[in-house]
Amino acid sequence: MNLQVRLRSLPREAVEEGHFELREGPVPNLAAGEVLIRNHFLSLDPYMRKRLADAVAGRVPFGPGDLMMGRTVGEVIESRDARFRPGEHVLGWGGWQQYSAEPAAKLEKVVDAGGMPLSVHLGVLGRPGITAWLGVVHVAAVRHGECFVVSSAAGAVGSLAGQMARHLGARVVGIAGGRAKCDAVTGELGFHGCVDYKSAGFEQALRDATPKGVEVCFENVGAAVLDATLGRMNENGRVAVCGLLGQYHSGAPYAFRNFPRVLDRALRVTGFRIDGNTDLHERARADLRAWLEGGVFRSWETVSQGLEAAPAAFVSMLEGRGRGKTLVRLA
Amino acid sequence: MNLQVRLRSLPREAVEEGHFELREGPVPNLAAGEVLIRNHFLSLDPYMRKRLADAVAGRVPFGPGDLMMGRTVGEVIESRDARFRPGEHVLGWGGWQQYSAEPAAKLEKVVDAGGMPLSVHLGVLGRPGITAWLGVVHVAAVRHGECFVVSSAAGAVGSLAGQMARHLGARVVGIAGGRAKCDAVTGELGFHGCVDYKSAGFEQALRDATPKGVEVCFENVGAAVLDATLGRMNENGRVAVCGLLGQYHSGAPYAFRNFPRVLDRALRVTGFRIDGNTDLHERARADLRAWLEGGVFRSWETVSQGLEAAPAAFVSMLEGRGRGKTLVRLA
Repeated sequence: MNLQVRLRSLPREAVEEGHFELREGPVPNLAAGEVLIRNHFLSLDPYMRKRLADAVAGRVPFGPGDLMMGRTVGEVIESRDARFRPGEHVLGWGGWQQYSAEPAAKLEKVVDAGGMPLSVHLGVLGRPGITAWLGVVHVAAVRHGECFVVSSAAGAVGSLAGQMARHLGARVVGIAGGRAKCDAVTGELGFHGCVDYKSAGFEQALRDATPKGVEVCFENVGAAVLDATLGRMNENGRVAVCGLLGQYHSGAPYAFRNFPRVLDRALRVTGFRIDGNTDLHERARADLRAWLEGGVFRSWETVSQGLEAAPAAFVSMLEGRGRGKTLVRLA
Repeated sequence: MNLQVRLRSLPREAVEEGHFELREGPVPNLAAGEVLIRNHFLSLDPYMRKRLADAVAGRVPFGPGDLMMGRTVGEVIESRDARFRPGEHVLGWGGWQQYSAEPAAKLEKVVDAGGMPLSVHLGVLGRPGITAWLGVVHVAAVRHGECFVVSSAAGAVGSLAGQMARHLGARVVGIAGGRAKCDAVTGELGFHGCVDYKSAGFEQALRDATPKGVEVCFENVGAAVLDATLGRMNENGRVAVCGLLGQYHSGAPYAFRNFPRVLDRALRVTGFRIDGNTDLHERARADLRAWLEGGVFRSWETVSQGLEAAPAAFVSMLEGRGRGKTLVRLA
């Protein structure tokens, strides 16, 4: 049997477990050129929230009854392509299910990461790591001595982006929800500061934490969080927009008080996505691997057990209750 | 006597003639290193509106009783610096007055532009021309075949930016207020299209004028005008933010419906100011001079006669009633 999680209904506001349903189906049969994979880990990511919002807005062909998509790492069980053999580990887009049949052309063989667990390929060496690298190194090009602010600082991408910027010599200030999370970001990840966006004194705390202003903003949230950071940006500052998680729930546009600062301070605001920069992935992976082996990163993971736990784990991640990479262990 | 225009009171909303007052003072005496200039032309520009808004917000030390600032071109009457001699033409920051005493170090000698009138140094070869060049060539780096949208298309900067982009091979669509102005932008300046932002069907008209979407937005207005163009931007599009004239009147922040497109389309939104790019002015001037001599530009001017006319001319420019460069002839 093959356990799956499918979308039951589209979330108009907050995502809840009831928007998903468990289903059992047969293990898929293979067509020529396909590979059958038993998935070990499923990655849960904020972009999935955006995909749901896009579906509500009619921008993507995705709706009730469809299998939830997702990045997976697993083991080849059967192969109808000469490049893959049973027992090999592969990265794919298996989705929220135990077994997936995927075209060989879309799979990637896992390169052993010195005995690291398979999950690292969905985290530091995977899309979160590459995304963080693109924002820090390519889009914002942070330099030694600059002040670097990152929101969702305890999230999969934010926690890596901040550690990278610190390694590159920046003064790093995170923004996260809740005192405990902020303490972990400074205490365990070595950020120079971390500000709680849920506290009443958020804006003042951000000013205090960035006394000389901000050169780089790595943005994962948008809305009031981005607005506060915009208000701290220095001349020629760079804003790397990686996500707008705080704006997906509500269709209402957010009125940024500090938007005019784009002109006043000659800011550069750049949206970027991992898929738009595939020519840089090789370089990113080489850096990430070297930094990982050099102990630059502490890699936080929040792992749930069993596919049944995926909806709750997803909701928990969206509500900011996890730390670092959110994963579901399937085998 | 030296006629001057000073600020009488700060505009909280729309700027009116009553916010200014005429005063007569003595022709200034010179200190060592200063030059006395009889100003021939005063340039009136949108940034002055921004300076008034900044003064209201307490961001600049400028208020009632102060002389209005402004770029001027004029003739040296007397000099206490060896580099300048009576009769020479110079560019300076003389302000809204007939005679100014300025430090020699801040003056620029006018390089003859093949018999062109002095006013050209405040337009195509001056700050509007350099600003347009910076946005088109440096910030947006428009390429052949791209769709280029510019707001305030009939303004000093917008009219030049659009003509430059067209010369560089772009398909150029202007945004301007009123049918007559739009007709002039297409008929006289050779834009491929021009959309009236005051018409009820503005957004649909912009869609129709940009059937394949937009690669470059040269923004002078902000608010609903920028929002509409954001909604047309293609993947990896560039937005060069030169001005936000439509947002200076009101302190209320504007809620951009299409801000999320910065992420969805991986846009690059860059604010820029002429003063932040002085290393490029030489290159800009060389291009502008060559293009001017090559007949690339049609240079629109709206010239008022006499300093007394400056407040009305300024209000008229802000209300979009002029075309191209707004000037006051002082001598």
